[in-house]
Amino acid sequence: MTSSIAIGIDLGGTNLKGAVISGDGRILAKRTIPTDTSRGPEAVITEMVTLVDTLLRDIDAPRSRLRGVGVGAPGPLSQTKGRIIRTANLPGWVDVPLRDLLAERVGRPVVLENDGNAAAFGEYWAGSGELRDDLVMLTLGTGVGAGVVLGGRVLHGHFENAAELGHTIVVDHGLPCPCGQRGCLEQYASAAGVARRVAAAVLDGEASVLADSIRGGAPVDSAEVARAARAGDALCRRVWEEACIYLAVTCINIQHAFNPARIVLGGGMAEAGAFLLDSVTEHVNRRRWRLHDDVPAIGLAGLGYDAGVIGAAALVLAGWPTSSEVGDAKMPQLRIPHR
Amino acid sequence: MTSSIAIGIDLGGTNLKGAVISGDGRILAKRTIPTDTSRGPEAVITEMVTLVDTLLRDIDAPRSRLRGVGVGAPGPLSQTKGRIIRTANLPGWVDVPLRDLLAERVGRPVVLENDGNAAAFGEYWAGSGELRDDLVMLTLGTGVGAGVVLGGRVLHGHFENAAELGHTIVVDHGLPCPCGQRGCLEQYASAAGVARRVAAAVLDGEASVLADSIRGGAPVDSAEVARAARAGDALCRRVWEEACIYLAVTCINIQHAFNPARIVLGGGMAEAGAFLLDSVTEHVNRRRWRLHDDVPAIGLAGLGYDAGVIGAAALVLAGWPTSSEVGDAKMPQLRIPHR
Repeated sequence: MTSSIAIGIDLGGTNLKGAVISGDGRILAKRTIPTDTSRGPEAVITEMVTLVDTLLRDIDAPRSRLRGVGVGAPGPLSQTKGRIIRTANLPGWVDVPLRDLLAERVGRPVVLENDGNAAAFGEYWAGSGELRDDLVMLTLGTGVGAGVVLGGRVLHGHFENAAELGHTIVVDHGLPCPCGQRGCLEQYASAAGVARRVAAAVLDGEASVLADSIRGGAPVDSAEVARAARAGDALCRRVWEEACIYLAVTCINIQHAFNPARIVLGGGMAEAGAFLLDSVTEHVNRRRWRLHDDVPAIGLAGLGYDAGVIGAAALVLAGWPTSSEVGDAKMPQLRIPHR
Repeated sequence: MTSSIAIGIDLGGTNLKGAVISGDGRILAKRTIPTDTSRGPEAVITEMVTLVDTLLRDIDAPRSRLRGVGVGAPGPLSQTKGRIIRTANLPGWVDVPLRDLLAERVGRPVVLENDGNAAAFGEYWAGSGELRDDLVMLTLGTGVGAGVVLGGRVLHGHFENAAELGHTIVVDHGLPCPCGQRGCLEQYASAAGVARRVAAAVLDGEASVLADSIRGGAPVDSAEVARAARAGDALCRRVWEEACIYLAVTCINIQHAFNPARIVLGGGMAEAGAFLLDSVTEHVNRRRWRLHDDVPAIGLAGLGYDAGVIGAAALVLAGWPTSSEVGDAKMPQLRIPHR
């Protein structure tokens, strides 16, 4: 065990996930507890403090050994100010200075980052690729989270809300999204979106092996859709393939926008493994341009569901500005540890 | 006149445009000569040398006063290697080390940059906005050129071909593009694309005030389409509005990808002024999300057709690596002059 450890926390609408990460990217301890969002931010922050202490007990370390805590949370948020601006899955969280509140309670530096950005940084830092390779990650879960790492830094943009690629519009006048837009990528190519589209088609009268359970009110997830698609169910095949097509178009648009070395797919849909990756890759190859060999390598996330907590901790370990520093200052060059 | 001057050259398929730019962004002299592409790179480079000397004579300055020459050229190219990889509008230009060939002939440092990037840097440096504001520029001309300036630097990406936003796919299985893809933005929302779509519809039997001249074989341009659309021509209105819708969706997707402070529209279509900008803005406002106030300011380019030459020269004046330096090294922080 190295002497440098950090805790990464993923703040979700249903779970609070935490892990102790060593300076060389190993998970030393990991815990998941349900998030009780009904009692507001203060209660959740108290749960976070308990989670930190429980994790430290798991490895028998005092708080003082902790370099800091990284928190990945749903956006929009301000990384430099350490504030959550608003978030769909956490009712009542409006302009919450989470970073400083938690830092005060834990007594260690805290960094707050968009959850998609944290996961991307985790894959960049400890995933399968080469460090220094620009990377874009798409996390295909409840929505489509995304993060962009360019030159070793997370891209934030002028309004600190870059890399919201789940809300790029792929179908003008398409399916409505709770964000207020229509036709967002995440309506078609998130794990939840795929399940919703199959359910809607069944309730609309289409046949499917999943029809009985859907009509019976059972929740369907993307793993079942993938399984049924693989087994030849026509509806599930169509919805799955359309998701892969929208992801392929998005990969091409990422190629032309950021021109990264790699695009990494993670989240629930990525559990289908090659069944996802082969289809996305095939649709990219059918559509890609012939002017230049600059298609990024497209692959599956190497860290699975741990990308978020590893990435959040990695931001601390890599020297990202935390609450103990002047958060509004320019980002320092990252000191990236070697694996 | 400041003592620091640079020449910016825009290498196009039909014209070679050059200007002498002062350290404070003023145009001291400007020339345009036709490009004779039929005789290959060597002949064009000779024309470039003549253009440089003519411009210097215009302001009565020796070559030694020149800080360097910036060349904006169609991509794909390698900025770090100073080589043109291939280009659709310049037949026979395959892997041409343009930067070093020109530097040897002129005896001054040369920097080679993608023309869309050069124009974006020009708008960033000398256009209407604030320096330090991240900016994305779309040049709506023969195609849709684009450039992204983040933190004062042009985004190049791992393969040095970032910001090819004209080739983001806006319609899956849409109109074929010479790049090999289908449904590229520039098929719908470039000056040439708009004119082509009107002509195709007329030849397909649709009525338009432009029908006679199109059937008579006269070339139509986007200015005529805009004029006819303003005057109520149904076909031209539809094609123009569709272009604005695709641009609006692209602006939203740029918002979610880069989250820049500003998006700047330039090129032939931008000559329509408010008739373009108001429509794009209206379609953005209809479609934009409600989660966060992070829609970039969308405006018209401030430098008109000079953005490319000003930007190419600005890259020299701002201390961009040139052929006199190690081109493959990491970009230095730009020394941006104050206006």
